[in-house]
Amino acid sequence: MESTILYLIPALGILGLVVMAVQSSWVSKQPTGEDNMVELATYIAEGAMAFLKAEWKILTYFAIVAAIVLAWSGMMVETSSPVIALSFILGAILSATAGYIGMNIATKANVRTTQAARTSLKGALQVAFTGGTVMGLGVTGLAVIGLGSLFIIFYNIYVVNTGGSVNGKAMEKAIEVLAGFSLGAESIALFARVGGGIYTKAADVGADLVGKVEAGIPEDDVRNPATIADNVGDNVGDVAGMGADLFGSYVATILATMVLGREIVVRDNFGGLSPMLLPMLIAGLGIIFSIIGFSLVRISDDKGNVQRALNIGNWTSVIITTIACYFIVMWMMPANMTLRGANFTNTGVFYAILVGSIVGALMSIVTEFYTAMGKRPVRSIVQQSDTGAATNIIGGLSVGMESTLVPTLILAAGIYLSHYFAGLYGVAIAAAGMMATTAMQLAIDAFGPIADNAGGIAEMSRLPKEVRARTDILDAVGNTTAATGKGFAIASAALTALALFAAYVGLAGINSIDIYKADVLAGLFVGGMIPFIFSSLCIAAVGRAAMEMVKEVRRQFKEIPGIMEYKAKPEYDKCVAISTKASLREMMLPGAIALITPVVVGFAFGPEVLGGLLAGVTVSGVLMGMFQNNAGGAWDNAKKSFEAGVMINGEMQYKGSEAHKASVTGDTVGDPFKDTSGPSMNILIKLMSIVALIIAPHINVNKVPHKAELTPTVQVEQTVKIPTEKKL
Amino acid sequence: MESTILYLIPALGILGLVVMAVQSSWVSKQPTGEDNMVELATYIAEGAMAFLKAEWKILTYFAIVAAIVLAWSGMMVETSSPVIALSFILGAILSATAGYIGMNIATKANVRTTQAARTSLKGALQVAFTGGTVMGLGVTGLAVIGLGSLFIIFYNIYVVNTGGSVNGKAMEKAIEVLAGFSLGAESIALFARVGGGIYTKAADVGADLVGKVEAGIPEDDVRNPATIADNVGDNVGDVAGMGADLFGSYVATILATMVLGREIVVRDNFGGLSPMLLPMLIAGLGIIFSIIGFSLVRISDDKGNVQRALNIGNWTSVIITTIACYFIVMWMMPANMTLRGANFTNTGVFYAILVGSIVGALMSIVTEFYTAMGKRPVRSIVQQSDTGAATNIIGGLSVGMESTLVPTLILAAGIYLSHYFAGLYGVAIAAAGMMATTAMQLAIDAFGPIADNAGGIAEMSRLPKEVRARTDILDAVGNTTAATGKGFAIASAALTALALFAAYVGLAGINSIDIYKADVLAGLFVGGMIPFIFSSLCIAAVGRAAMEMVKEVRRQFKEIPGIMEYKAKPEYDKCVAISTKASLREMMLPGAIALITPVVVGFAFGPEVLGGLLAGVTVSGVLMGMFQNNAGGAWDNAKKSFEAGVMINGEMQYKGSEAHKASVTGDTVGDPFKDTSGPSMNILIKLMSIVALIIAPHINVNKVPHKAELTPTVQVEQTVKIPTEKKL
Repeated sequence: MESTILYLIPALGILGLVVMAVQSSWVSKQPTGEDNMVELATYIAEGAMAFLKAEWKILTYFAIVAAIVLAWSGMMVETSSPVIALSFILGAILSATAGYIGMNIATKANVRTTQAARTSLKGALQVAFTGGTVMGLGVTGLAVIGLGSLFIIFYNIYVVNTGGSVNGKAMEKAIEVLAGFSLGAESIALFARVGGGIYTKAADVGADLVGKVEAGIPEDDVRNPATIADNVGDNVGDVAGMGADLFGSYVATILATMVLGREIVVRDNFGGLSPMLLPMLIAGLGIIFSIIGFSLVRISDDKGNVQRALNIGNWTSVIITTIACYFIVMWMMPANMTLRGANFTNTGVFYAILVGSIVGALMSIVTEFYTAMGKRPVRSIVQQSDTGAATNIIGGLSVGMESTLVPTLILAAGIYLSHYFAGLYGVAIAAAGMMATTAMQLAIDAFGPIADNAGGIAEMSRLPKEVRARTDILDAVGNTTAATGKGFAIASAALTALALFAAYVGLAGINSIDIYKADVLAGLFVGGMIPFIFSSLCIAAVGRAAMEMVKEVRRQFKEIPGIMEYKAKPEYDKCVAISTKASLREMMLPGAIALITPVVVGFAFGPEVLGGLLAGVTVSGVLMGMFQNNAGGAWDNAKKSFEAGVMINGEMQYKGSEAHKASVTGDTVGDPFKDTSGPSMNILIKLMSIVALIIAPHINVNKVPHKAELTPTVQVEQTVKIPTEKKL
Repeated sequence: MESTILYLIPALGILGLVVMAVQSSWVSKQPTGEDNMVELATYIAEGAMAFLKAEWKILTYFAIVAAIVLAWSGMMVETSSPVIALSFILGAILSATAGYIGMNIATKANVRTTQAARTSLKGALQVAFTGGTVMGLGVTGLAVIGLGSLFIIFYNIYVVNTGGSVNGKAMEKAIEVLAGFSLGAESIALFARVGGGIYTKAADVGADLVGKVEAGIPEDDVRNPATIADNVGDNVGDVAGMGADLFGSYVATILATMVLGREIVVRDNFGGLSPMLLPMLIAGLGIIFSIIGFSLVRISDDKGNVQRALNIGNWTSVIITTIACYFIVMWMMPANMTLRGANFTNTGVFYAILVGSIVGALMSIVTEFYTAMGKRPVRSIVQQSDTGAATNIIGGLSVGMESTLVPTLILAAGIYLSHYFAGLYGVAIAAAGMMATTAMQLAIDAFGPIADNAGGIAEMSRLPKEVRARTDILDAVGNTTAATGKGFAIASAALTALALFAAYVGLAGINSIDIYKADVLAGLFVGGMIPFIFSSLCIAAVGRAAMEMVKEVRRQFKEIPGIMEYKAKPEYDKCVAISTKASLREMMLPGAIALITPVVVGFAFGPEVLGGLLAGVTVSGVLMGMFQNNAGGAWDNAKKSFEAGVMINGEMQYKGSEAHKASVTGDTVGDPFKDTSGPSMNILIKLMSIVALIIAPHINVNKVPHKAELTPTVQVEQTVKIPTEKKL
């Protein structure tokens, strides 16, 4: 029975990839339009590919060094193995591949969306969204296949072949080795997100500062030397970066649930594996239900409501998945379970999943409130733009800080309730339930930058106004989904980090993280500081790179005569090179901080202080993430509000007014907030927790001697029967 | 022997007040200059007094309600008493008085400093600094007298008269009742700081936005209707608000050490009272050593270095105090002590004090680095001003976030080491040692706004340029001391909050605050969020009030003809009224959050969750405080850098350049950061801890039944002999 499920999981992943291939080939078959459009799209695709290649080169060195360290450390403790290095490399490769798939389809779908928009909004939505679904299925399919297959392999090697217990040290080793996969995925995710985030915002800010402000030419104007870099940025940051990011999150969430699930002693459900199989199965089925949701994202004509179409697709897949979870949980899980002294039932596990879904939905709603046009927060920023850039900035900072209130209360309630229903396993499975429809979330998220790019190509190709109008409708929806997606991402990251935290505590052999102890409290302080310094580095990097970009664009305007009259072509490649170089240089230090700090603190001060550090990082990271994402989103939409006109002091004000200019300043400040430092926070908190999890056996307070005999430590009521030949 | 020390403490406070009276009368005797100067000074003094009166009226209602609740709650548990309400009211009154003394002298010293500056820098420094010393001595003198006398009274009532043990429940009750004094002081401090902070920045931002930016008239121009409100603001925010703030901090620090000191069982040093007497005695002696330091703040002529003079005075008093602490500790404290299982020596206690002094000094140095002109952080903001307001803001935010790195590491090391040397008592006494020279710190801090006001009066009275030049020298030094003072304040607040936290854990009857528990972790999240929402409310309040101010100033410029030609006088009082009303209205909600949250969480979820909440508030509050203070200070000095001229891209840029205008935007954004929300953080974290301390007996997990018999619970090796007649 367990083998059916075991093999069903990667099969679901393969099914996802098959559907992805069909969708992808459909997109490729769509018409691309005239030569000049194709030429621009080619510049963008080449720039994006050049960045990915340069990034991969650096990350290869990193992965090799990290793999060597992991292999060596895997030999040092009994509960790990040098094989962890292979897991790590596979995770890194699949994470990079997930980003590549997304970027590849996005750079194809962009120009095809532009072409479709020449005819209808309906067609444009279909091309852009189908592009998004390719990415969604690619990320989740690869993750489920990777995790599912590795689990089968390690389960056979470490448990079945040794005759170990599924609840004992043998399985602990299998899961620890599997954690390497998550570490690989999340490490690449961090670099991709930070590097891509710096790339895209350096180009965006640089292009805007000289183009819009100094030269007075519109956004995405073909005369702006930085415009190609800006459009490349949308792909490497918002698409490839986000793909790797969500790949990492998705894997980390499932893994955290498996680590805790291993500790639940189950008599005979699926050979005792059910608590570990559940998160993987939910993820696999989530792919199928996302595919069902995809088919509902349709509008009938140009008057159709795009946001509504996306919502119908999204909520359908969320609701079907939740209902399915009920039956799966009741079927797979035993009636009563115990984890670290907490007793709970299978109904409780379902309730925890339900809590996760509700938390995710509420977080999206609150985030939308704080960042949507026409709502009180954005309106207040618009009003404050009337007295200049300073009050606009003050307004946005205040909205961003305020926006942490309700989400934090929701999150605290979510932690409390999911734990109430199913202990620590409940916290983890709530995150897993929330992440089940990642394919759908990602399709909605990726559709935004595709539409954005399509609009850019329309502008650069000087297509008729109605084309740009259609892509603008998609782009505006994309801004909202980007904001809500971030709310969702930070909530799932918080729950996952807590699940990893709980998993870490178990593996480190400690029973408490007592902040009443001075050293643990000091750890909490240092941990709380890390998101601040991390954000500072990201923001400063964008600022520096944008300055370089500004200087280059100014130079080209000055030294290349005829640019302004469309007579000479700007040197796009120089700007692409600046963004590429700067982002790769600047992603190193933040990445190193995230990876090295837990190792240093863990070995120097022990597991409990490291626990304090992780708690500090998580709390502060979640808050800084929400603050920065929402402030950035609100500034962006405050600026956009002027396009339709806003009423200030009884007077209508439009684009070009003084108040609008003030709002552009806010938007520029918000750029690195919402696309570089803010979204990095959720990777930061998960990555540091995963690193802690990996080193936990090394700093375990009851560290077992090297190569000691493998014996189950947990007393099971009735030993699980496992077909086995070999014994130690 | 103990009675000598007991009575010596308030005597030292009285000595401080006597010196204060002498200094105050000297200031009053200085010449005030011409009639128009006196007229302006009178406007300022009247506006400030009007605000204080309006504020006191509201706070009286608050204090009465709070006192009733406290009296009632004091009846409910054995370890408290309704008398706590009286302590509370005394604390509130003395805190308000401390603010009043400062404001009263500042509004006298300002015009006298202007007059002195007509002759020499030396004289101006002397008047301004002597004004500062009056405030320093007023705050510390009142605090030491208040705490010292109440301790004598409660010690006699609850311990001596009942024959209770100095280490038992009797003394616990005495200290709990004394905690009411600190609660009163800190509550008033919060309202004064927040209300004053909103007042001053609403006026400042409003005056600048219309005056400097729209009308193009200089700062402090007599034609600007908001200029009097702006100068009043310096007094109610930077002087009265800061006075109440530091009064609260000073008292809280001493009290926290006394709460922990009570638990140390001392055989016979000063009747077993020495661990409780030590922090009060250090504070009292710190007053004397500060007076010695005062006399060293002198320059010989106009070429004298003002910063150096202040440093000499400051370091002299810090060093003498630290040396004195060595002898006092060795004399008063037993060789070996135990507190909650930690053993330490009197040498250890001294080392902890030394750690505190070093942490305070290092924090000041790091803060200065991040906010001083010519150093890398401010220089980077200057450079980023060249591409406009947006990059200037990005630069400042990045610097602010970065500035949390080193101070957090210093603080973490300080916590670790002071705990290492003398357990939890070490953490508390480190803060007490750091705060010992508060009189000196405050004199240096208060000197800044006096000089600022003096410059304003010089400008408004259109005195010759060299007068303004002299006050500008003082003002520039004042900006640096304001920044370093804030670094010092946040460090001492962090240590004090931790000491209060430790004290709370004891009184709540719990042994750990385990964030591995889901509910405690949820508390940590909610706690971490509070500084964000609190800051948001403060910043938004300034934004709103500044908008009202802008509208009023615009109206006056439009409706009162002849203002610009000095022919008509602006209606200063209308602007004063706007700031007054707005600040009083807007201080309510943040204040309520700080006071009510711990009560709700404590009673609803128990003491351990409340502990998690406090830890979250403390960590997040310290970080947000440093971030906002330092970003604001750096923006301010980036703007000021243009006055002397800065080199950007090989070109000198001065006031009036585009880059300078961009830097003005940053400065305006930084105003509420550095003078409203940032400095409120240290009161917030202490106030919430004190509230928790007060309710601790009510939510104690082993809550003793009401009116149970008073018996010592701690086993003392040899019962302390106390002269007593009555027994229960």
